[in-house]
Amino acid sequence: MTAPRAKGFAFRVLASSASGHARAAVLTTPHAEVETPTFMPVGTQGSVKGLTSEDVASTGAQIMLGNTYHLWLRPGPDVISSLGGLRGFTRWPRAMLTDSGGFQAFSLGGNLPRPAPANGPAQAPRKSLVTLDEEGFTFRSHLDGARHHLSPEVAVRVQGKIGADIQMQLDVCPPGDSARDVVEAAVSRTTRWARRALATERPEGQALFGIVQGACFTDLRRAHADELASLEPSFDGLALGGFSVGEPIPKMYATLHEVAHALDPERPRYLMGVGTPRDLLEAIDAGVDMFDCVLPTRNARNGQALTRFGRVIIKQARYKDDAGPLDPACTCPCCAGGYARAYLRHLYLAGEMTVLRLLTLHNLHWYGELVRGARAAIRGGSWAAFKARTLADLAEENRVTC
Amino acid sequence: MTAPRAKGFAFRVLASSASGHARAAVLTTPHAEVETPTFMPVGTQGSVKGLTSEDVASTGAQIMLGNTYHLWLRPGPDVISSLGGLRGFTRWPRAMLTDSGGFQAFSLGGNLPRPAPANGPAQAPRKSLVTLDEEGFTFRSHLDGARHHLSPEVAVRVQGKIGADIQMQLDVCPPGDSARDVVEAAVSRTTRWARRALATERPEGQALFGIVQGACFTDLRRAHADELASLEPSFDGLALGGFSVGEPIPKMYATLHEVAHALDPERPRYLMGVGTPRDLLEAIDAGVDMFDCVLPTRNARNGQALTRFGRVIIKQARYKDDAGPLDPACTCPCCAGGYARAYLRHLYLAGEMTVLRLLTLHNLHWYGELVRGARAAIRGGSWAAFKARTLADLAEENRVTC
Repeated sequence: MTAPRAKGFAFRVLASSASGHARAAVLTTPHAEVETPTFMPVGTQGSVKGLTSEDVASTGAQIMLGNTYHLWLRPGPDVISSLGGLRGFTRWPRAMLTDSGGFQAFSLGGNLPRPAPANGPAQAPRKSLVTLDEEGFTFRSHLDGARHHLSPEVAVRVQGKIGADIQMQLDVCPPGDSARDVVEAAVSRTTRWARRALATERPEGQALFGIVQGACFTDLRRAHADELASLEPSFDGLALGGFSVGEPIPKMYATLHEVAHALDPERPRYLMGVGTPRDLLEAIDAGVDMFDCVLPTRNARNGQALTRFGRVIIKQARYKDDAGPLDPACTCPCCAGGYARAYLRHLYLAGEMTVLRLLTLHNLHWYGELVRGARAAIRGGSWAAFKARTLADLAEENRVTC
Repeated sequence: MTAPRAKGFAFRVLASSASGHARAAVLTTPHAEVETPTFMPVGTQGSVKGLTSEDVASTGAQIMLGNTYHLWLRPGPDVISSLGGLRGFTRWPRAMLTDSGGFQAFSLGGNLPRPAPANGPAQAPRKSLVTLDEEGFTFRSHLDGARHHLSPEVAVRVQGKIGADIQMQLDVCPPGDSARDVVEAAVSRTTRWARRALATERPEGQALFGIVQGACFTDLRRAHADELASLEPSFDGLALGGFSVGEPIPKMYATLHEVAHALDPERPRYLMGVGTPRDLLEAIDAGVDMFDCVLPTRNARNGQALTRFGRVIIKQARYKDDAGPLDPACTCPCCAGGYARAYLRHLYLAGEMTVLRLLTLHNLHWYGELVRGARAAIRGGSWAAFKARTLADLAEENRVTC
């Protein structure tokens, strides 16, 4: 079961679960092997906030995500390219994926900086229109207000210079509660943009993934998945976009269980921007291979640590003189280093940035262990038991949300 | 040449320079051996900003400083004591020293927090009186306005609970431009406080250092040094306080060269709060063994890196696409990790905290190498040449100041 398309890429399924559609596979890129299911830490601006690349590797992560919108605006694709591409620039020795920039162009591109008035309170950023038409997005940089145009072709060219192993096509992602006709229009345009992206020349050794839209309309999702899978030249992987954008979580799960396994089984399946540990378990069961989410890193910076016993909100007074680590069974540098909850709480309340790094290392290590455990269970024939046991551990009161 | 006083302490001079008064020694504490000359990174709130204890150890530091004022107010000596003292709390495996808290009580203790008004710009903190009399300081916490009293006895007791290897006596430090009678009064009171500190019971295995004052009045300094050295029970080391507090730098150097070597040679000599690489070289030559300063860590957080070729101000446009490390000969995690100046500049401009950790590691490594080089030169009989060569490297345009 292989489907190498871009040079140096391969995807090999090693095992599938008896119940559900979970699978363990290896994605080979020109620079690394990525065992799936995998979780990609988000390095928005060329850095997973608070961590060096060495730190990120220590959490077990095998592939990292960079945000094209941010890197395009600063430091710019030419600087990154001249420093050896994103992997050379960030000194990340494993695989890299970049998004297309469309999501942030839409959500951030309208937030223009506004000079602070001499007196009086600071003012909210000025919202300008982001225009979206058949050609692409026109937006203004949230850094300096400069006008930029992002088309399917530009997305491929900018990502080409940034130089990750895997590029994502530019797509149209409607809000989770959009009407069917809005979703249909987004799906059609995403397909037209998919053809334009595939027709754009990109550097050898970079893969390109297509993005399936369709919100929670199962028929639209399945039709779009088939359509994107049939395009030639072909995509190296297929992603599910437009989830976790406002729809109810049970609806997302139900749609994933009906849709994910219908994506071409010979290509990696990537669920974009999702999610919680529970989300990952459900989506793996539905047949997804790859994930990214800011949750573990953002929560860490908000003082929240994931443990087998639920969330630890480190600022709480109950940890005032707690000599134990976040999780006694955890082998991350924070827990294995013997840092007590009381010490972490002190650093957090004192505003010492080291605690943000330690909690980020812990949470990413936790996600790394989750997908490592999933891979081992799938390959060992115990996926259903692993999923049930881990879900039971994630008791309802410990539920964390993005 | 030994002078063990507190249990588990010893100080052994291994070599002295032919020119000047530089010396290489080993200070033994119950927990570690500290080779001198040594530089102590400042871990104000139980953390060298941006670094874990493991990070600090990686820079070659053998002893770390904690600020009693900050640790007393938050998390408090009882919490630290219950977590195994400051070394256990911070997981620092080597030696620790705490200051007395007097300096910060005086400089920060009057800055009361003030609620922000509903409208209009934030207001500067309200300055309240810090009272200083024969009994000690009365001040209010800059965190919550609570009133505290700091006496020579309280300083010993609080430091006793914090539990560093080395305590400092409470002293009186007048501004650098004070008149002779003001300095004389400070010296006399510091001596009376020294007797009170020595008479206060402290935990076994904690050393206590006395502090020599006298500003740049050489005769006052020498007389005070002799007086403190003669006290019984005796101090385990002698410090030079009241330098780098506003006096001209050449005057500080001249005073150090006349005074430092006159401090009891059988005890370690510690120059408090100083200084630049040049300051260290001059003071080592004058006979000083121990240093602390926030310069390398604070400058790092301001985007300044020390190199053999002068300061690197990382935000400068000249580093926009500079592929080289901060210093090609440096073996710190930042330089040896291959992080390019262009990458560090990008992270700094993007507000990514990882760059602050990397620059802090680099600067502390630089200080670690400076004192390591000094020790090797003194022991190898080449101190004068080492000092001259290193000073020449620190060309005037590269001068960094605290």
